[in-house]
Amino acid sequence: MTVSRQRRATLPDVAALAGVSTAAAGRALGGYGSVSEEVRQRVLNAAEQLNYRANRLAASVRTGRTDTIGVVCADIESPFFARALRGISDVAHKHGFSTLVTNSDEDLTSERNAVQLLLDKQVDGIICAPADVQQVAHLAQAQGAGTPVVLFDRMSDHLDADAVIVDGVKAAYQAVSRLIALGHERIAIVAELRQPREQDWARFLTPAADVSPGVLSPSEARLLGYLRAHWDAGVPVRRELVRRTGAYDVGAAYRQMKRVLALKHPPTAVFLVDNLMTVGSYRAIRDSGISVPERLSVLAFDDLDWTVLVSPALSVIAQPVYEMGAEAARQLIARIRGGREDGPGTTVMDVTLIERESTAPVVRAPGPVLAPARAHGRRPPAARVAPSPSGASPGG
Amino acid sequence: MTVSRQRRATLPDVAALAGVSTAAAGRALGGYGSVSEEVRQRVLNAAEQLNYRANRLAASVRTGRTDTIGVVCADIESPFFARALRGISDVAHKHGFSTLVTNSDEDLTSERNAVQLLLDKQVDGIICAPADVQQVAHLAQAQGAGTPVVLFDRMSDHLDADAVIVDGVKAAYQAVSRLIALGHERIAIVAELRQPREQDWARFLTPAADVSPGVLSPSEARLLGYLRAHWDAGVPVRRELVRRTGAYDVGAAYRQMKRVLALKHPPTAVFLVDNLMTVGSYRAIRDSGISVPERLSVLAFDDLDWTVLVSPALSVIAQPVYEMGAEAARQLIARIRGGREDGPGTTVMDVTLIERESTAPVVRAPGPVLAPARAHGRRPPAARVAPSPSGASPGG
Repeated sequence: MTVSRQRRATLPDVAALAGVSTAAAGRALGGYGSVSEEVRQRVLNAAEQLNYRANRLAASVRTGRTDTIGVVCADIESPFFARALRGISDVAHKHGFSTLVTNSDEDLTSERNAVQLLLDKQVDGIICAPADVQQVAHLAQAQGAGTPVVLFDRMSDHLDADAVIVDGVKAAYQAVSRLIALGHERIAIVAELRQPREQDWARFLTPAADVSPGVLSPSEARLLGYLRAHWDAGVPVRRELVRRTGAYDVGAAYRQMKRVLALKHPPTAVFLVDNLMTVGSYRAIRDSGISVPERLSVLAFDDLDWTVLVSPALSVIAQPVYEMGAEAARQLIARIRGGREDGPGTTVMDVTLIERESTAPVVRAPGPVLAPARAHGRRPPAARVAPSPSGASPGG
Repeated sequence: MTVSRQRRATLPDVAALAGVSTAAAGRALGGYGSVSEEVRQRVLNAAEQLNYRANRLAASVRTGRTDTIGVVCADIESPFFARALRGISDVAHKHGFSTLVTNSDEDLTSERNAVQLLLDKQVDGIICAPADVQQVAHLAQAQGAGTPVVLFDRMSDHLDADAVIVDGVKAAYQAVSRLIALGHERIAIVAELRQPREQDWARFLTPAADVSPGVLSPSEARLLGYLRAHWDAGVPVRRELVRRTGAYDVGAAYRQMKRVLALKHPPTAVFLVDNLMTVGSYRAIRDSGISVPERLSVLAFDDLDWTVLVSPALSVIAQPVYEMGAEAARQLIARIRGGREDGPGTTVMDVTLIERESTAPVVRAPGPVLAPARAHGRRPPAARVAPSPSGASPGG
């Protein structure tokens, strides 16, 4: 019997070559059930001859373990997840676990498929950054089938699972409060805010409302921190300064930033809530020729490779991304090994506000000020700097 | 019988609950061999009751297909691979394939383990960026067992497989020739060059030598292009300007760049051969207060998010990264489906030289010139700008 090099040998191929039933071949290779030593040898020889891969699943049928963890990234292209994956895989490797990575692209259907795929591949546990913190039934099912789940970057009130997060509300509150302390009262925010559920918004847009972080997406949490910083400081929130892109999309962030800079009363500061918003918004700021921090203070969520390479260097809220990934892996492996008696809990990691050169006290300008000539080659298109006789005055 | 929620139900659990042998339960769930309808129903009921996942492997035993492709990244944290993964998974998704991603960290042992893992998980094919283009026996074995392999970003003379690459020699030749055309004759290169095999180096450091791209790592290919551009233009190669980091490491690139800038005769231009070298080197240039492009032209491999955000905007060699990933996936899927009659081939994609603001004609300065004050907050530490009375003169 010949098996083409183009086709992988299957169990029936092995059985045919060994002259036994497929079931017997399965028993011989899988190590369960009874099979004579002679048949076992024939099957093993046939498997070797055909280069048949006796996969580890056979072993896992008995032990229930494959020493593999699965990860569902929300966006595999984001530097945030890339860095977190490093933390996850370093810890996994140290503990003898392999890591299989999938991607949801922030899409619920893709996430469900990814979780299903990982379960099919018999991973021992799953780390997931859920695309929708309120739609997590598929993760509950995985748990129900004995596969532990650790949530990453996001927690959910609808899942009884460990989670490793930063407190997005608090981090944004800290960032925006700092801008307010610098005298800014017209602070823009550029955020994804893909799923603003009307009932939730009505709830959490009311000061004093008690909103659980487990019903908020990361961008919603950061918006809430932005709002609370305003409320606590007595600074009015201006709806035209809250810019929603509807997706983690650099181009959409660019367009929203352009629009907010073109307002009759443009902001004197902007809070950019994640790395993609930052890339798009920062391009728009550069293209508009707005001078940072003289005319616009910029504070961004996430410390990226290039934040110290631009001029001025960006002030940021830095998340301990690597450590968040590492901690999620540690928690998952502890669950897999069954060494933990405690119930699921949420680990909240601290962020750090790093003030570099892009944030400064507000300048109270009496009249229109065009960006001064700067040492970069691109000339500011003057027409795009909205002439704002009073717009530069805070609270104006 | 109760199965703890903490442990995944196994085939023996199902068999026990159904009151049949494990082999019979396997036959009933796997769909091979003979089993009575009554036993089949008992087993299926037990499986449902225990939330036992009848995994797709059972089907794959018959079809030899799992509709999953595996990817071995060389560095999952690199923006290059992150972008390529997007191309791969978009095409895979379109064709009904799921994607499982692993990482080798440019380490051969990790790569072998990753390939083994993917084979264990019964992927239908593998896209791999080999850590060592000369050590690929594990990939040949995968092919031998019927799992097609497509090489990504690197090709190998030791593997008869499809490959999707750019011509690193030609791209670097184009980049460095452009710098030479701008009058530069002291051009530094910062490159990984982890595995300089003495016998290869002796070969390819000789002008006229015919070196196959299939024995070169990406950084070796780019060094060769750098050398050939010099040879063809009659510009002498200066060994002190060839800086080797020994790893894809931002810190090492920073240190090498610092050292080359501190030479008595520093370079007037630098060619940075990949994105990690660029991040580290560019930081060193900034910290040294060297004015770009007035004192140093900078040309980098890979167009990144931030290359247009820095001042001056970086000139780059842009690779079609997304399309490279997409093409690798297309080729792999065609092999998996068996629709291709042609033998393995190499697809070479074109790069684009994008000249922005960081490259300029060489300035022939008569004496030491300190960087002019720039609009960024960090003051150039003057002591670090090597006083080079003649060093700025090309070829000096």
